[in-house]
Amino acid sequence: MTYVIPEFDQAAARAAAERLDRLTKPQGSLGRLEELAIRLAGMTGNARCRFERRTVVVMAADHGVTEEAVSAYPPEVTVQMVANFVAGGAGINVLARRAGAQVVVVDMGVRGPAAASGVLDRRLGSGTRNMLREPAMTRAQAEAAIATGRELAGQLAAGGTELLLTGEMGIGNTTAASAVTAALTGRPPAEVTGRGTGLDDAALAHKVSVVERALALHRPEPGDPVGVLAAVGGFELGGLAGLVIGAAERRIPVVLDGFITGAAALLAAALAPSCRAYLIASHRSVEPGHGAILAVLGLEPLLDLGLRLGEGTGAALALQLIDAALAVRDEMATFDEAGVSERSEG
Amino acid sequence: MTYVIPEFDQAAARAAAERLDRLTKPQGSLGRLEELAIRLAGMTGNARCRFERRTVVVMAADHGVTEEAVSAYPPEVTVQMVANFVAGGAGINVLARRAGAQVVVVDMGVRGPAAASGVLDRRLGSGTRNMLREPAMTRAQAEAAIATGRELAGQLAAGGTELLLTGEMGIGNTTAASAVTAALTGRPPAEVTGRGTGLDDAALAHKVSVVERALALHRPEPGDPVGVLAAVGGFELGGLAGLVIGAAERRIPVVLDGFITGAAALLAAALAPSCRAYLIASHRSVEPGHGAILAVLGLEPLLDLGLRLGEGTGAALALQLIDAALAVRDEMATFDEAGVSERSEG
Repeated sequence: MTYVIPEFDQAAARAAAERLDRLTKPQGSLGRLEELAIRLAGMTGNARCRFERRTVVVMAADHGVTEEAVSAYPPEVTVQMVANFVAGGAGINVLARRAGAQVVVVDMGVRGPAAASGVLDRRLGSGTRNMLREPAMTRAQAEAAIATGRELAGQLAAGGTELLLTGEMGIGNTTAASAVTAALTGRPPAEVTGRGTGLDDAALAHKVSVVERALALHRPEPGDPVGVLAAVGGFELGGLAGLVIGAAERRIPVVLDGFITGAAALLAAALAPSCRAYLIASHRSVEPGHGAILAVLGLEPLLDLGLRLGEGTGAALALQLIDAALAVRDEMATFDEAGVSERSEG
Repeated sequence: MTYVIPEFDQAAARAAAERLDRLTKPQGSLGRLEELAIRLAGMTGNARCRFERRTVVVMAADHGVTEEAVSAYPPEVTVQMVANFVAGGAGINVLARRAGAQVVVVDMGVRGPAAASGVLDRRLGSGTRNMLREPAMTRAQAEAAIATGRELAGQLAAGGTELLLTGEMGIGNTTAASAVTAALTGRPPAEVTGRGTGLDDAALAHKVSVVERALALHRPEPGDPVGVLAAVGGFELGGLAGLVIGAAERRIPVVLDGFITGAAALLAAALAPSCRAYLIASHRSVEPGHGAILAVLGLEPLLDLGLRLGEGTGAALALQLIDAALAVRDEMATFDEAGVSERSEG
């Protein structure tokens, strides 16, 4: 599969930078806000881009590897949290509301019965299989997960979405994300596996060992991202990877959340390297594997707040910085308009 | 002068922490947002504190040391920017609007004629004197600056302000802030003096030398913060120090901006150490002296976005995180309400 990703629009980025330099502030003094406005112009091809409709896509799925006691929470929490998302009571609901973003909840393969009402049904199974015994999914399922996410990006774009935020829910998915990250970056599992929702030292050592043994069993090839996803990934990871690709194909910027959505973006970048130009890293997760992902993607996160909730909460917080950047670009007076002197030297 | 600062309310902080721990998320997984909600409860004495009225106080003043060519901008920019603040075209206007904060502009001693309409007149002179030749202000002026800021906190509180954000404008004021920081922390001027609005290497070396010579001339005593302010400070620095003290006396949290407002808080903490409990550091400025200030105040900034505009812009951006923290505290469902299982171990 070849994906056609448009090039970053240097002219639009330059036009945004020129506008920012005429505003009543020392050039560059709003730091990363200015960088954001410039990058978003290049992504969208519009120096005055606006994002009226912004959508947080929260993809949920279950993970067979929870049989190995890799999480502090029981697996039924995934479906319970999906219900919480639909009811509007989760962290992502609160933060998305504040940022004026809608939340779309996608069942990519939660355990148990069919998706609840209010949830998009894109189920590829009733959770993945236990990667410690067999591949998490078939290659066909991995391809379907990516295609599903990519199609969803198209559907959301057709509905008017101009900015995508990524989120996820899935008890066990930090284990899958660690395995994917280790497989794609070549880093040892111990360096990219963390405490997830709150494991103690012994439980963390066990989780590292699970990742090590799963990778030793499947030996996924970093040059074959679909194979990596099938061996040790998750349905939501594949779906989010596809969503990133589908967004980049349409010049829709994607605000990543933390470690899980970062691992999905790593898969997307392995499939279509140019999609990196459309990514914004919202925050630096406390998960140790996140740094390795950001380094490969060439991204510097906007926030560093010790977040480890997931769901898209960091992305929703960063959206407020994006909106601030665009407001600065559009609402500040220029030196000419305000009658303010420019700097006295060249 | 002795200031009576109420103690941080541990019971209210604990009540906020208990509420946060019942919400549908792993405990502590919203990191610094949770810490913010807890600290704000302790400051206000209210586990469900709200900040309906929030005010950015932008104090402006001029600096005699601009005679020594320490800034890339001509001194008339101070008064021009004050007019821009009143007209609503500056960065702080844009970011305060987005965060639902009013902007109060205070003339603490801008050069030239009396304050423009729309500006609070608290003038203590027509700019300070050149610290390289004589003290920047008299001891009486320094005391008046602090008293003025403290009184303003009382006036704003009487008008309903529940949260204060600090901002400033004054060509030359990074030089004064560097001198104050060096005097109060004992750090060498070269470590706490930066490029301000954008000096090149030669101009920076000159600025460091100006600070060194001013300190050698006056030898201000770190145990005498009023003397430090008089020798090498600025009217806005004194006013902001007083504002911090007046806010802390009333349990009003203060969101600091960057280096200049940090130097003012350093003065406030030297006068009344307990006021540190009421401070929130919004961001890490690119000015090198800011780190020294934050270390003394025991504060960890929320944002690190390469900002160096001042005006209160970083504080206004951080206000969005504060509001997000309070929304999380109040709007998320609890485990009981949502029927979500808690973690399986203790």
